Amino acid sequence: MRKNSKDAIVDSAIVLFNIKGFNGTSIRDIANKANVNVANIAYYFQNKHGLLEYCYTTFFESYLHEIERGFNSLNKGPTECLKEITKNIIHFHCQNIHLTRFILREMSIDSQVVREIMSTYFVKERYYFKRVFEEGIQTKEYRPLSVNYMIIQLKSLLSMPFLNSYYVTEVLHVFPHEPYFERKYLEEIYNWIDGVVCNMHFQNRDALLV
Amino acid sequence: MRKNSKDAIVDSAIVLFNIKGFNGTSIRDIANKANVNVANIAYYFQNKHGLLEYCYTTFFESYLHEIERGFNSLNKGPTECLKEITKNIIHFHCQNIHLTRFILREMSIDSQVVREIMSTYFVKERYYFKRVFEEGIQTKEYRPLSVNYMIIQLKSLLSMPFLNSYYVTEVLHVFPHEPYFERKYLEEIYNWIDGVVCNMHFQNRDALLV
Repeated sequence: MRKNSKDAIVDSAIVLFNIKGFNGTSIRDIANKANVNVANIAYYFQNKHGLLEYCYTTFFESYLHEIERGFNSLNKGPTECLKEITKNIIHFHCQNIHLTRFILREMSIDSQVVREIMSTYFVKERYYFKRVFEEGIQTKEYRPLSVNYMIIQLKSLLSMPFLNSYYVTEVLHVFPHEPYFERKYLEEIYNWIDGVVCNMHFQNRDALLV
Repeated sequence: MRKNSKDAIVDSAIVLFNIKGFNGTSIRDIANKANVNVANIAYYFQNKHGLLEYCYTTFFESYLHEIERGFNSLNKGPTECLKEITKNIIHFHCQNIHLTRFILREMSIDSQVVREIMSTYFVKERYYFKRVFEEGIQTKEYRPLSVNYMIIQLKSLLSMPFLNSYYVTEVLHVFPHEPYFERKYLEEIYNWIDGVVCNMHFQNRDALLV
């Protein structure tokens, strides 16, 4: 991202939203932190809700793009494809750690905006995940799973350390903003894919019985 | 729980917090919904923060009790024990679905109260999980895992459908408040314990090679 005043406003807003909440943060707080004047924020975003909408759109457009990029490797097989999608998402979350945290928390509220986001972005996300899982089940590379319950698990693993970065840092002493985290956590999700999603047990048994 | 006015206040508050957020909910809103007068709320909880603290304490005391109950079965082996703890937590979450959702979302904010809760309840929770995982690794019933990364995964699986009940219901058409959910979702976590945590692969191979 370019470090112009628009970006400075967004970055400052996200940090403040994560500490004081969206309702507890004023336009003046954001202007002070970003070192711009209030009129500047109004010029780019009209008001605080315009800024919020900009955060949502920026996040979800990029997020879906990362899923789509991974989905394009479905011809390499569903396991490879699921790992590719996972890698892209974890990388994207690590690159946008504060924004990710804020968005994931907002998504747990019942509101009109959240409902709209669900019916556009999350329905598309579900489409891609579902296609991959169905392909895996059909080719027997995956176990005969309940697709929706697999999506719950995958999404929980993809979001937890980012949503709960404070817990993860303070209680477990795992630091999501450090470079090793991305590689290490990705390995953990790959273990989940191999151990829970894939039909490894039967593959290994067959190999040993030959 | 007894359905007296104190419980009615708490139940109404939680429903409102989940829709309008803690800051967006007034004592008057809660009084109206609970069909009590404002003085009644002041009598039990002093103010909105007192009510919030009561919610936290009630939740975490019971939550830790469920973990402790499960932990007491460690003599049956770490796998059995981990499944027992998981069963107790999922049951507790299903029984207190609105409160769980509210608490899990609050825990993702950086605040003084959250910090205090982490240093008491979440440190105790970590102690129990760590003991079980370490026992499993030592007895080779579990793979040689990174304990903290396993706690991240376990906690993510335990919380996601409750924190994101709106998403799970609207997008995936999975209904956490329905009776079948508890059994079905527990099975999914058991699959994670068997497929990711446990040394099943080696156990099976040994059995086949005998």
